[in-house]
Order: sequence, then structure tokens, then C-alpha cells
Amino acid sequence: MSGRVAIIGIGITEFGELWDQRYRDLITKAGTKAIIDAGIEGEDIEGLYIGSMSPGLFSGQEHIGALVADYSGLIGIPAVRVEGACASGSLALREAYLAIKSGEMDIVVAGGVEKMTDVSASYATVTLMGAGDQEWETFKGATFPSIYALMARRHMFEYGTTIEQISQVAVKSHDNACLNPNAQFPFRVTLDQVMRSSLIADPLRLLHCSPLSDGAAAVVLASEEKAKELSKNPVWIRASSTATDTLALHDRKSLSRMDSTILAAGKAYKKAGIKPKDIEFAEVHDCFSIAEILAIEGLGFCGIGEGGRLTEGGDTALDGRIPINTSGGLKGKGHPVGATGIAQAVEATLQLRGDAGKRQVKDARLGLIHNVGGSGATTVIHILEVD
Amino acid sequence: MSGRVAIIGIGITEFGELWDQRYRDLITKAGTKAIIDAGIEGEDIEGLYIGSMSPGLFSGQEHIGALVADYSGLIGIPAVRVEGACASGSLALREAYLAIKSGEMDIVVAGGVEKMTDVSASYATVTLMGAGDQEWETFKGATFPSIYALMARRHMFEYGTTIEQISQVAVKSHDNACLNPNAQFPFRVTLDQVMRSSLIADPLRLLHCSPLSDGAAAVVLASEEKAKELSKNPVWIRASSTATDTLALHDRKSLSRMDSTILAAGKAYKKAGIKPKDIEFAEVHDCFSIAEILAIEGLGFCGIGEGGRLTEGGDTALDGRIPINTSGGLKGKGHPVGATGIAQAVEATLQLRGDAGKRQVKDARLGLIHNVGGSGATTVIHILEVD
Repeated sequence: MSGRVAIIGIGITEFGELWDQRYRDLITKAGTKAIIDAGIEGEDIEGLYIGSMSPGLFSGQEHIGALVADYSGLIGIPAVRVEGACASGSLALREAYLAIKSGEMDIVVAGGVEKMTDVSASYATVTLMGAGDQEWETFKGATFPSIYALMARRHMFEYGTTIEQISQVAVKSHDNACLNPNAQFPFRVTLDQVMRSSLIADPLRLLHCSPLSDGAAAVVLASEEKAKELSKNPVWIRASSTATDTLALHDRKSLSRMDSTILAAGKAYKKAGIKPKDIEFAEVHDCFSIAEILAIEGLGFCGIGEGGRLTEGGDTALDGRIPINTSGGLKGKGHPVGATGIAQAVEATLQLRGDAGKRQVKDARLGLIHNVGGSGATTVIHILEVD
Repeated sequence: MSGRVAIIGIGITEFGELWDQRYRDLITKAGTKAIIDAGIEGEDIEGLYIGSMSPGLFSGQEHIGALVADYSGLIGIPAVRVEGACASGSLALREAYLAIKSGEMDIVVAGGVEKMTDVSASYATVTLMGAGDQEWETFKGATFPSIYALMARRHMFEYGTTIEQISQVAVKSHDNACLNPNAQFPFRVTLDQVMRSSLIADPLRLLHCSPLSDGAAAVVLASEEKAKELSKNPVWIRASSTATDTLALHDRKSLSRMDSTILAAGKAYKKAGIKPKDIEFAEVHDCFSIAEILAIEGLGFCGIGEGGRLTEGGDTALDGRIPINTSGGLKGKGHPVGATGIAQAVEATLQLRGDAGKRQVKDARLGLIHNVGGSGATTVIHILEVD
């Protein structure tokens, strides 16, 4: 074990409906930016991990590791695709981290990519149900908006969470997205606009839902020795953890709590030797606005059931006590599912380098990224810091 | 780094058209067998890696790590799907190996699974083309039989390889499959039968082609310390390596050579500190009979261009100098693509334990497994041994 692992380079594409760019264009663009940012050459790279959820169903393409190695001019190197539904990106980051920790490699690229807008919205909705339980959810007609709607209803019932509180998540995400040049939706929305938007799955409305997106992101990871040699501003991975839960929502102990997040967070804080209150900012998985509330509760930024009130009080805003989703989150920035976990790492790195521009969290030195697959069957957490 | 990593448990299902068993049934069955074989409990397992190529296209199911954790009763543990087309299984084995080497886990299950026969053969053929280049091969109408046919023709042209030699691969595979109770095709075929079988893609005929299959396999890996504590017959992973090549065949330097295999083999032998002649038996990726010839050449068991003659001379038979595919290979045993790499590890473990029954290679102490994605864009190699 070679000590710590650092992020020494980051790259990201714009997120949106990018009909003029292919899947392979997006990921090679993000990867090239990351390599340039790291100040290394392609030949320095010893391995490649790519997170992508459903390129087979979206584009008829599997064998993603080799595809990306080939089109990045890195032919020959070890290249692996990692999948865990919408948590695929963070799982790729984690596998790259473990590969360096194993001592087998010193410099590894972790990327994430999805191209979701070349198919119809209904086809995409069914494809995304690959993240749920095919037999018990998909086949019965469930979709993710309806599954998260059940979680929202239950949270409202148990804790008195209001639709205004849930809507405030989206308002904040759009506020932050305005400050992110790569965001899919860089415009503000009012609480009233969110609450009057089209009903999708009661109580969730259009502006509570993250979009279908195309996009990619990549980070270069290095062993401690290489990071110190190559980088002036390494961002260290202080902890990496992941946990699972039942695939289908109805099998869970609770509909209003995300137990995989609670479990993964506990492991991550223990590994890092810190408490939730030590975290200065976080990127969390707000695929639907209720999911952000479940996330900040599961991560211990407030008690279970208090996430709505924390949001309403402004604590999670850019200038609040614990800024959440400074990037605009999945709602404002976009959600090309395989790319999302890596995009979170890019945002956290910008914050920790002090390079986040108008959305900079002042003096940020310790942040957390949180990526979820499905309705919570997978959670992946990384805690990042600067010395 | 905690020293060596061992296989301490193995499990495999029958391979074939298993219409009465679901995807999730197959992998949990294989996993349960492996856990029982290892003599451990589910709670001992710290992580799960599952190789599967196209469950999204075959069954509408992604998020495979969480699915398997859930249906195996291992809810909570880290669970990741790994994909590299038909090399997905071996890549899962490799990631499990790296996870243990990283020091983060001590006992990890690596599984592989595919369910390919619930769809039409034409749908399956297009799905499998996800392993090729969607834009340059699939979209233009190429299929894997036609791609491997090009490689066969070129090999015949360059090296004088005959169709009889290529056919002898299939004859041998079926001979060995007769001795494997899990094989899909446990019957003999004659050279004449192979050469008169239906033409699929000239010069390849039906009996040169591995089938569509359902099946799963799993192995339990443990750190050196845990392996010595738990196992009476650990099989050690002496080297793990992988390499890539261009995704599309036409971009390669040569059509009659598998450069990713040559590269990965070179790295594996170097790590292990051995020569090809030290290997006593191997399971190689014979998705088409020509592929076995390319494999044994790339692995250095004979010179480039000599694989046909090596096969014809009987050197690769069960009682030959270097027995290849004692399991029956992909041709005789079946080829549920994501399961294949793990099934190879199961076979090698049986051989090294001396538990291979009628297909036992006498006194086997050092074996190699070789798994390919697509037409050779990914190769994964593991060298296994007993003390």
C-alpha cells in the first residue's frame, strides 16, 4: 500500500442535449481535458476505469473500457467499465482508487459518461428502470419518478415535510447552476414555478426531477509519491466507501430513509476519523428533489426527518452552514447518469483548489461526494481534502 | 499489500439453454456453491464483483452488483458490476484480486453470469456486437462470426493453416466436454462432422462457433492470511494482467495475430517470473475455433502461425504436451459470456486441486486462464498455482 491517493487532474464536458457529439467524443474530450489539467502525457497513464450505466441500451455499444482506451489513443493499457446504475461514475472512481492502493498502478484515469438523448424519453425512462428491479418494479410499470414519489409521500407523512421544502431544493439547485458554465439549466426558478410545474408523479413535479442528459467527466488519480512529484494542488481521497441495499424499494425497512447512504457514510466517516459536522460542503445525489433531503439526512448533516427544514432555513445554500450541490446538482447541472459521480469529484476538486469561481465555498478544505444508484440500492461516498 | 491472493472456493451452474432459471437464480446458485465450497458464511464476505456483458439488452436489468448482493442475502456489502464484453468475468476476478491487494478487503466473491437464450438468436447476435465497434462494425452489418472468419482466412493465407487444423480445435473441445458434467454439449463430433456442418461465415461453420448459453460461475478470493486460516487447498493467483487493442478489427496491425494477448501474456509471465513452457495447462478463449489457435500462439505455447499444426499434432489434447481447454472450452462447455472468465478460473482450480476427475491433467501445479473481449480488444490473463 503506497499511502494516499490524490486527484491531480480534472476534465468535464458541458452537460445537455448534445446531439452533435458522440458517446466516444464526450468521454475522450473529458479525458483529454483531465490529462492536460494534470500536466501529464497519455503514456504516463497505467489504467482506465469508465463508469457508464446503459451504453448497450442507449447506443448499442458495450466493451466501454476498450472503446475509450482506443479512441483516447491509449491502446494497450488496462481498461475496465464499471457499472452500478447511476452510481457507476463513483464506483469507477473507487475502483481506480483501489487499483492504486493495490500497488499495481500509480497513475489511473477514472471517467464517467452517458449519452441519453439520442432515444425517445419513454425509451430512456424504461432504460433507466434497469437500475430498479426488473421483475418486481419495471415489469409492473414502476418508473423512477413514481418510486421517488412514494418516498416523498412517506417522508411528508412521517416527518411533516412540505412540498415547499422539497421545492426549495430545486430552487437552490438552479441558483447554483447559474454559476456553473457547464450546467444544462443555468437559469433561476422560483418556488412558485417549481410548485406549478407539470405533475409527473404526485407529489413530484417536472422541476423536482433531474433531466435526461449527455455528458462526460474524468479525473486523473495518482499515488502519493506521483502526486507529490507531479502536482502543485493535489486533492486527497481521505476515504472511499460504498454500501448496498435491496434493489426494490418495497423490500426496504423504511421508505423514508436511505439505509445504504447511512451505512456508507458511517464507514466513510470512520475511515476518515471525522464527524459529519467537519464536512464543509457536499455534492449529493439529487436525482429528484426528495433525494437530496434523504441524502443530507443520511449523511448526518441533520437528523432523520429534518432535511426539509434544513433546506428551507437556507443552511444548504451556497452561503449556508453546509453548502450542498454548489455545482447545481443533478437537477441544475444535468444528470448523464454514468458521468454524475465523476462530475461530483470534479466539482469538489474545484472547490478544494479554490477554483470554483463565483460558486466558491470560502476556504473549503474538506468535502464529501455522494452518488446513488437506483432508489438507493447502491451508495458510494468519497471524502476529499487538501493538506 | 497483504501478500498473495488465493481462490478458496468455487461454484458453477450447468451451462445451456436454462429457460426455467432466471438470471438472478443462476448467479446466486453459483455464488452459494462457491461459499459452501470455501466453508465460509455469507457474513464473512466483504465485497462482490460481478462480470456480466449485456444484462440490460438481454433482460432489461442493470445495477447487477446490488441485484446479486440483494438476492444472495448479502445486503449492505460493496457490490460492483464489471464489464469488458466477453472478458467481463476475468475482469471481475481481477478487480476482486486488486481489492484484496489494496488492503481494503480480505474475502471477496468474484462472479460471472449471462442469460442469453431468452431472446431470439438474431437479437442475441446484434447484442453481442456491443463488444465490437458500433459505428464501424455493427452499423455496417458485421457480426462476430464474420469478424472471426476474416481472421481465420488471413491466418490460412499467411501461415498455411488448414480448415482441418481449425476443425481439430472443435473436435478436441467436444472430446473434453464429454468429461465435464456442466458442459452444454457433452458429445463427441468427428472432423468430418465439423467440416460438413452448416456454413456460417466462410470458412467458419456451425461447429467452429461457440453457442449462446445461460450460466454462471463464482469464486471466493481471500488474502494470504485468510486463505491460510480458512483453506486446506488454496489456489494462488500468481499473476493478473490485462491489455487492450483497437476495438475494431480493421484498425489492427495484423488480422492474424492477437496483440492484446501477446501484450497481456508478456506482462503476466514477467510478473510471475516464468516462461510459457512452464505452464502445464490452460483454459483459453475459443469463442470460434480460430480464436484458440490465435490464443495459443499469442500465449507463446508455439510460434506465431504454428497453432494449427500444434493442434493437429495432438499437443493441446488432454494427454498432450500442453492441454488446452480441458473443460471443453467455450465451444463444448458453452459460453454465457459474462460467466466465461470465472468458469475458466473454476476449471483451473479443479485441475490444481487435483479434483478434475476424468479430465484431470496429471500433477498440475501451474495453469493459465485467458479470456478475450470482442475480437481481441481486451485480453485478461491470470496465472494460477498451488504451493
